[in-house]
Amino acid sequence: MTEINQMNCKCSNKDNCSSHNNEQFKIKSSLNSFNPFTSRVIDLGKGQFIGGGHFQAIAGPCSIEGNHIFELAATLKACGVSILRGGAFKPRTCPDSFQGLGKEGLELLVQAGHDNDMLTISEIMSERDIDLYHDIDILQVGARNCQNYSLLKELGKTNKPVLLKRGMATTIDELISCARYITQAGNDRVILCERGIRTFEPKTRNTFDVSSIAALHNGCDFPIVADPSHATGLSNLVAPCTLAAVACGADGIQVEVHEDPQSAMSDKDQALTPNEFKNLMHDVESMHAFLTQ
Amino acid sequence: MTEINQMNCKCSNKDNCSSHNNEQFKIKSSLNSFNPFTSRVIDLGKGQFIGGGHFQAIAGPCSIEGNHIFELAATLKACGVSILRGGAFKPRTCPDSFQGLGKEGLELLVQAGHDNDMLTISEIMSERDIDLYHDIDILQVGARNCQNYSLLKELGKTNKPVLLKRGMATTIDELISCARYITQAGNDRVILCERGIRTFEPKTRNTFDVSSIAALHNGCDFPIVADPSHATGLSNLVAPCTLAAVACGADGIQVEVHEDPQSAMSDKDQALTPNEFKNLMHDVESMHAFLTQ
Amino acid sequence: MTEINQMNCKCSNKDNCSSHNNEQFKIKSSLNSFNPFTSRVIDLGKGQFIGGGHFQAIAGPCSIEGNHIFELAATLKACGVSILRGGAFKPRTCPDSFQGLGKEGLELLVQAGHDNDMLTISEIMSERDIDLYHDIDILQVGARNCQNYSLLKELGKTNKPVLLKRGMATTIDELISCARYITQAGNDRVILCERGIRTFEPKTRNTFDVSSIAALHNGCDFPIVADPSHATGLSNLVAPCTLAAVACGADGIQVEVHEDPQSAMSDKDQALTPNEFKNLMHDVESMHAFLTQ
Amino acid sequence: MTEINQMNCKCSNKDNCSSHNNEQFKIKSSLNSFNPFTSRVIDLGKGQFIGGGHFQAIAGPCSIEGNHIFELAATLKACGVSILRGGAFKPRTCPDSFQGLGKEGLELLVQAGHDNDMLTISEIMSERDIDLYHDIDILQVGARNCQNYSLLKELGKTNKPVLLKRGMATTIDELISCARYITQAGNDRVILCERGIRTFEPKTRNTFDVSSIAALHNGCDFPIVADPSHATGLSNLVAPCTLAAVACGADGIQVEVHEDPQSAMSDKDQALTPNEFKNLMHDVESMHAFLTQ
Repeated sequence: MTEINQMNCKCSNKDNCSSHNNEQFKIKSSLNSFNPFTSRVIDLGKGQFIGGGHFQAIAGPCSIEGNHIFELAATLKACGVSILRGGAFKPRTCPDSFQGLGKEGLELLVQAGHDNDMLTISEIMSERDIDLYHDIDILQVGARNCQNYSLLKELGKTNKPVLLKRGMATTIDELISCARYITQAGNDRVILCERGIRTFEPKTRNTFDVSSIAALHNGCDFPIVADPSHATGLSNLVAPCTLAAVACGADGIQVEVHEDPQSAMSDKDQALTPNEFKNLMHDVESMHAFLTQ
Repeated sequence: MTEINQMNCKCSNKDNCSSHNNEQFKIKSSLNSFNPFTSRVIDLGKGQFIGGGHFQAIAGPCSIEGNHIFELAATLKACGVSILRGGAFKPRTCPDSFQGLGKEGLELLVQAGHDNDMLTISEIMSERDIDLYHDIDILQVGARNCQNYSLLKELGKTNKPVLLKRGMATTIDELISCARYITQAGNDRVILCERGIRTFEPKTRNTFDVSSIAALHNGCDFPIVADPSHATGLSNLVAPCTLAAVACGADGIQVEVHEDPQSAMSDKDQALTPNEFKNLMHDVESMHAFLTQ
Repeated sequence: MTEINQMNCKCSNKDNCSSHNNEQFKIKSSLNSFNPFTSRVIDLGKGQFIGGGHFQAIAGPCSIEGNHIFELAATLKACGVSILRGGAFKPRTCPDSFQGLGKEGLELLVQAGHDNDMLTISEIMSERDIDLYHDIDILQVGARNCQNYSLLKELGKTNKPVLLKRGMATTIDELISCARYITQAGNDRVILCERGIRTFEPKTRNTFDVSSIAALHNGCDFPIVADPSHATGLSNLVAPCTLAAVACGADGIQVEVHEDPQSAMSDKDQALTPNEFKNLMHDVESMHAFLTQ
Repeated sequence: MTEINQMNCKCSNKDNCSSHNNEQFKIKSSLNSFNPFTSRVIDLGKGQFIGGGHFQAIAGPCSIEGNHIFELAATLKACGVSILRGGAFKPRTCPDSFQGLGKEGLELLVQAGHDNDMLTISEIMSERDIDLYHDIDILQVGARNCQNYSLLKELGKTNKPVLLKRGMATTIDELISCARYITQAGNDRVILCERGIRTFEPKTRNTFDVSSIAALHNGCDFPIVADPSHATGLSNLVAPCTLAAVACGADGIQVEVHEDPQSAMSDKDQALTPNEFKNLMHDVESMHAFLTQ
């Protein structure tokens, strides 16, 4: 039986940390093979942690499209989500595509997070935009900028946690090296994210490399989040791949949810409806409780 | 709650089927998102089934090396394994490498299976060898022969179940088409196997495409087995990827086990020790019980 | 200046070999960097050779569809082609697709070759078919059977040259090992063929790995043929990729030609018309003359 | 015969353009299949053009390491090179690796270019560095920043030509879309560069997708440069792949040269010696003369 004494937890804020006081997430497991909780604990602020047994679900729309974010945030909060995602500056393949609401989108996200007592996360595409993200809690680096070392170095000078997504052709070892660009600049609150790699398989948008979760846990102590939405690109594969990620030891998940996926301005094929997501959250919590019972 | 009435099970042998009488494997789940048990039930013989809620663990050495198979088979049986694997004709990259014990290897496997009341499975590389496999219960087609249509057609004329491994560059849709070469020849007892695809990632031997398990369940009704040993090539990734596969809805797993991996004549880096496998089997059973409780 | 003395040529049949008596193909080059003619010379029969400065163009339809092969063969012969290709047993992804004319197709090919004094080449998919290929001059192994070692071993026992196509996920070193399965069985007349590998790029059917031509020349002494038709899958990319292959040192090319590509029963998008092919042959001959002047 | 009337050439500076007055590069070909010179002509400054029949060789060290650049530049100029490359800000996988000389490196490059009447090109990694590149003639975007849209948009506001390298997992269509981020911002002097894509093949650093040269010529009118140094990563494959690229219709090449490759601070395995490069340049000129005679 795997049992990590909570006294050894690297979390700096045991008293106010809900995970610490939540029997569901206590760090032990009745499984022999399941012991991924070796990553550092990262304090995300507002009493939330990730890593070392602290699990987080990140959810929200691909793009913030307007006021829809307020009702959606409330719905997600009710599902148990503590971190609200939403894209404001979007890295679209085609320059003619919707590029996001920009600064206005960030303001909507901040307000929605504030209204629902949620942390916020949004992708940053340029070091020149850092000031715009002043009120965003977690900075996300997208797959296309995974090896944008100039950006990584600048984010290493901020005091915000950074979620770094694996590039489409970035190896596991290269991803760890990318994270080190951030930590060497002074910021050790880095979270890695497996979001699928490019392969020959045309059925799925990318190929979800679930093994990277375990390999990364072996090779570094950063928490690992899985993003089955981008990895598969198909809403009906999101739930089974999410469960796979949790069973493989992911420290968190990131899932795209939209109140009406077919009308979404981006990534409509991969977004879950709020009801689908609610069902999935129930399962994720059950799975996590099983793994850590 | 997902609950499939056992009355509707496609299994033809309900009275003698241990799975049917085993509450652990009853076909329902307290999870909302977990409903993969839509594949046909395949009667493997000797009271064993796979698919439609019937889960199987297949285990054994990469290559049958001699009398070691007898003790190993007994150990695996004690762990709960009903299907013994072992290679006799080995598809080695280099013609100078150990090519397997051939006919003698098959005879050892048959005897070890008989002694322990286990089904046997071994890879067949040529349609001319079919007679040699007379006493083997399940015929395996390896990744290199996945699109060897001549072989598939001949196996379609046999009366044995066929486990068809995905080729290193075979798409999900192509794999289903390969299976249809077997079924169109008259044999509908086909089991598909995800064993990793070739990508740019050098850390793992292949990239384990866990999403293919769910995508295949959506696209066909063949049972799906996962082979984390070949998919990862690294023994320390086998357990987490096995759990991921089960959580994603796999109908079975295939794992390489060797009594002394470092002395194995092939694939030594990916084989589990009997003790590691015993621990993993406990976890797989717990996970499956959780998923189907 | 690269100049290989013809006295050292490994060709056994200098007097009757048209290449030897053709100034155009003499083995020297005014280029500094172009010295690929290090492969063994393979006697193909009927006074034709490949390798070591002997260049061959192989052409014909994807599938032999009937009597069309006779007029097409005459056209190709007039373009300077000495080896007629045509598929009789076709490895189609889908079992419902046209599978080739089989034995009848081979007979048509043999007759068309005989009528035009051309060598013939056709893909063999099963060791049990070897007798059917009695009158075919060169046996081709397709990409899907590149690592079908049982087939390779049997072809190693024949006395016919074998053209071995690289598998979709076969590495350069693995391809050389596959060739050794043939030579170790006693047949050293092996020709390798680069026909594209599977990558993430969706524009082309495969990705034409032109560098493999040079890398194979460094790693073994088998002649290397390029197949831009399968590599690209698009007729408008065949000519530029053919010229690239010749410039990179290929010992031959294989190109699909159909008298009416849009009506072809297979691979219609990649076939050249006879007129397009005639233009290409002119260019290939000019390029080769330039390289070896 | 392909013959493009020079009167129709889009070049704006016919009188001072050496290519225009150089019979060697006149825009016609005795080949039937060779007609790639359909790209726009880009004025690079200092009387140099690329595209539409104007061919350019770009050469220099991976990294500018110090005063070695002066002698190397003179050597390259003597070989016929008009554009000197050299890295000052290096995107190294590991943060501990040599990161380039930075601003000092750019100054050395500018001086070496000035001394030898050569244009200069160097990779820019951050939009905040644009001012530092004031005296550099051509801005290069590396593979890792191919889809760094913030950088592309800023470069679109400059008045310098941009050479945009294909990302390791960027499709042909995506590369064209990336170029449009630059042109939509107002800068239509974009040159694309094929430098290899990531595949399963371990022999070469990347896989050189020579077909992309022809496919890009079909899909857009930007000039296409090939970089066989990064594509193969092996110096002995650079020459044959360079010749392949020219034969496939590349408008230019970029090759890494170092006076002593084994002592180079980065990419030592792929750099040519000055003598190897001199031989290659002779061949490239011969090949281009042949193609356009």
